[in-house]
Amino acid sequence: MVVELICVGTELLMGNIVNTNAAYISEKCVGLGLSCFNQQVVGDNAQRLADAIRLAMSRSDIVILSGGLGPTEDDLTKEIASEVCGREMYLHEPSRLAIENYFKNRNIVLTDNNWKQAYIPENGIVLDNPNGTAPGVIIEEGEKRIILLPGPPNELIPMFEDKVVPYFEKLTDSTIYSVTVKETGIGESHAEEMIKDLIDAQTNPTIATYAKTGEVHIRISAKGTTKSEAKKLTTPVVREIKKRFGKHVYTTDEKVSLEMAVVDMLKEKGLTFTCAESCTGGLFSGRMVSAPGASEVYNMGFVTYANKAKRKLLGVSKDTLKEYGAVSKECALEMAVGAADKAKSDVAIAITGIAGPGGGTKDKPVGLVYIACFCMGNIVVEEYRFRGNRTKIRDSAVSHAISLMRNSLLDLDEE
Amino acid sequence: MVVELICVGTELLMGNIVNTNAAYISEKCVGLGLSCFNQQVVGDNAQRLADAIRLAMSRSDIVILSGGLGPTEDDLTKEIASEVCGREMYLHEPSRLAIENYFKNRNIVLTDNNWKQAYIPENGIVLDNPNGTAPGVIIEEGEKRIILLPGPPNELIPMFEDKVVPYFEKLTDSTIYSVTVKETGIGESHAEEMIKDLIDAQTNPTIATYAKTGEVHIRISAKGTTKSEAKKLTTPVVREIKKRFGKHVYTTDEKVSLEMAVVDMLKEKGLTFTCAESCTGGLFSGRMVSAPGASEVYNMGFVTYANKAKRKLLGVSKDTLKEYGAVSKECALEMAVGAADKAKSDVAIAITGIAGPGGGTKDKPVGLVYIACFCMGNIVVEEYRFRGNRTKIRDSAVSHAISLMRNSLLDLDEE
Repeated sequence: MVVELICVGTELLMGNIVNTNAAYISEKCVGLGLSCFNQQVVGDNAQRLADAIRLAMSRSDIVILSGGLGPTEDDLTKEIASEVCGREMYLHEPSRLAIENYFKNRNIVLTDNNWKQAYIPENGIVLDNPNGTAPGVIIEEGEKRIILLPGPPNELIPMFEDKVVPYFEKLTDSTIYSVTVKETGIGESHAEEMIKDLIDAQTNPTIATYAKTGEVHIRISAKGTTKSEAKKLTTPVVREIKKRFGKHVYTTDEKVSLEMAVVDMLKEKGLTFTCAESCTGGLFSGRMVSAPGASEVYNMGFVTYANKAKRKLLGVSKDTLKEYGAVSKECALEMAVGAADKAKSDVAIAITGIAGPGGGTKDKPVGLVYIACFCMGNIVVEEYRFRGNRTKIRDSAVSHAISLMRNSLLDLDEE
Repeated sequence: MVVELICVGTELLMGNIVNTNAAYISEKCVGLGLSCFNQQVVGDNAQRLADAIRLAMSRSDIVILSGGLGPTEDDLTKEIASEVCGREMYLHEPSRLAIENYFKNRNIVLTDNNWKQAYIPENGIVLDNPNGTAPGVIIEEGEKRIILLPGPPNELIPMFEDKVVPYFEKLTDSTIYSVTVKETGIGESHAEEMIKDLIDAQTNPTIATYAKTGEVHIRISAKGTTKSEAKKLTTPVVREIKKRFGKHVYTTDEKVSLEMAVVDMLKEKGLTFTCAESCTGGLFSGRMVSAPGASEVYNMGFVTYANKAKRKLLGVSKDTLKEYGAVSKECALEMAVGAADKAKSDVAIAITGIAGPGGGTKDKPVGLVYIACFCMGNIVVEEYRFRGNRTKIRDSAVSHAISLMRNSLLDLDEE
């Protein structure tokens, strides 16, 4: 089945916001075994919106619209979709009540146009929205399906997960089971090569790779008449992929990020970490703290931007800075040891490098970054040459630092 | 004139990447006074790509295609655009040479398919690409214009700025001059209200507001036959908007971010800053460091995630933590004073709050954040109640902290 996406909103056409909904919905649909060949973006304009829906219905089986379900007169998606399908709208009492309660619970005064959101096209399937006031709607029109979803991601995403995915599974008389194998330390092209035979041979399950900064996600999706049948199809493929990537695989749980996996490792081992950042200026720490429960393994971190700070807070020696410079293996090493000592932590990451745009030399070009990891008395320091602009280089450094910390923790098990 | 965007790439349809090019190009086009009514995304498929181009040409004056100019057989954009316009392709010698040199300078071996990128549709205007091997092309087809741009943003953006913008200016026989007034401290809906009369009265110049986290950008764009004529039209409007927003305006320079403006203020005043972060875990520091030249005003920063760290690194008193808790005005205040003292800085920001998802109580709900700013002996502390998920709350805290630091620096001038 072919699904087409229509994102509605003048703010998308004006470039005020980036269309993250399109990426989210597309990735989900591909994971469900649906094909996506076209996306459209239109503004809140009746004629153009109707044209877009008609075009999509002419070439796709499922049309997903996001946005334009708000309470103002500008919001037209539901009205135009109803019109295209020749449906009247009626006041849907449960939605009216839900809206009333939503406002009551938040002590906000309802305005008359809020009721607009409770009107539903005849025979539409209502997808209730616990995170906002706009219910979603599915219109079944012959063989075609039109799905209307609210625009804000914090409303759209849970509605898609909880309501649309089960609907798709019923619709296709088959279910899709997906597993994402997440690996770090092997780049995308090399990773693809390592499983090229599996990718080339794929029919069911299918295999797709997604490159992320410092990691690659490999999604294995199988179709079956039952979930357990589909799951069974993925099992040998997942096992084979995990075998090939070995210790580079950090999770097969969709919801677990690299920093979450590393925080979990620390918790399991009962260890704490700290960090000393120069060119990343706090971004490593900020990302580690995004893992829930980081507080159990993290007490304090240091941003030592100036040489003076490296000396004062971490005890990096004057001689090291003089002889090798702040961007050096030697300095990274002393930063890591100093941070671990100062914070009384078991593990410490230190990052020092040249993020650009200025500051590069022939010997030490922009992108040169040293990352050291002190881990229970052991210490490693790696040299990286990242490419891209300042933001890209700093992001790469953070991802590789987390990956390096993970490797150091893995090495503990091997000792 | 109406411009339509076609972004080409299977990775967009699969959701592997977010379509930032669409937002970039749209924002630029709106700034140039062009109208955008439709965007399309298609994969590397000959038939669907041809259909998309024909549809766009039927309803828009200018069609901009991004992506699909690479060297592989999958890359079809140039070939299909030529076909739709009935043009033959020829080997464009300067482009061939440029590609040859590009590879030579990087010591990379050319493969045969790289020459594909040097073929240009007859009578096409070549836009050379100093940042990659795919030249851009403009095809003039009667009244219509088709513009082919490479997909990677680091190639597309400079090509758009340097080649496409001047082409558009010539095309329209008029030029657009834009000024962006950036303000912080007044939310979007209130900001819009404050200039509603100006927005309602707009014809030339036009006024558009763009909400960013913790700030609002107001773009004033005027059309004129010469740049100086257009600029003259913006001047009184910019003056009026600046007057209304007063000290909330931090720049009218497109390229200056809030953190850059604050770093510049510190430099001017010869002051240094530091920071002590709890719930933001280093993100404030990381963002300040993204401003070039931050090293002149920033030596060190502290991530004090645990209470123990707040006491040890910053000297927050045991009693304060016991009586008021870590998320309190009192704690924020002591963190800021302690950080300034420890780093010997003139200015210090402290952030402590509950970013969620867990940790909230009735009295101290998720989203409650205290930000203190110590500034040359003065100190202010503000209470915020941010909404959204963990990421949103932390981003909001960072933006408001930068804004608060700016206010404190402004207050110095008034003393």
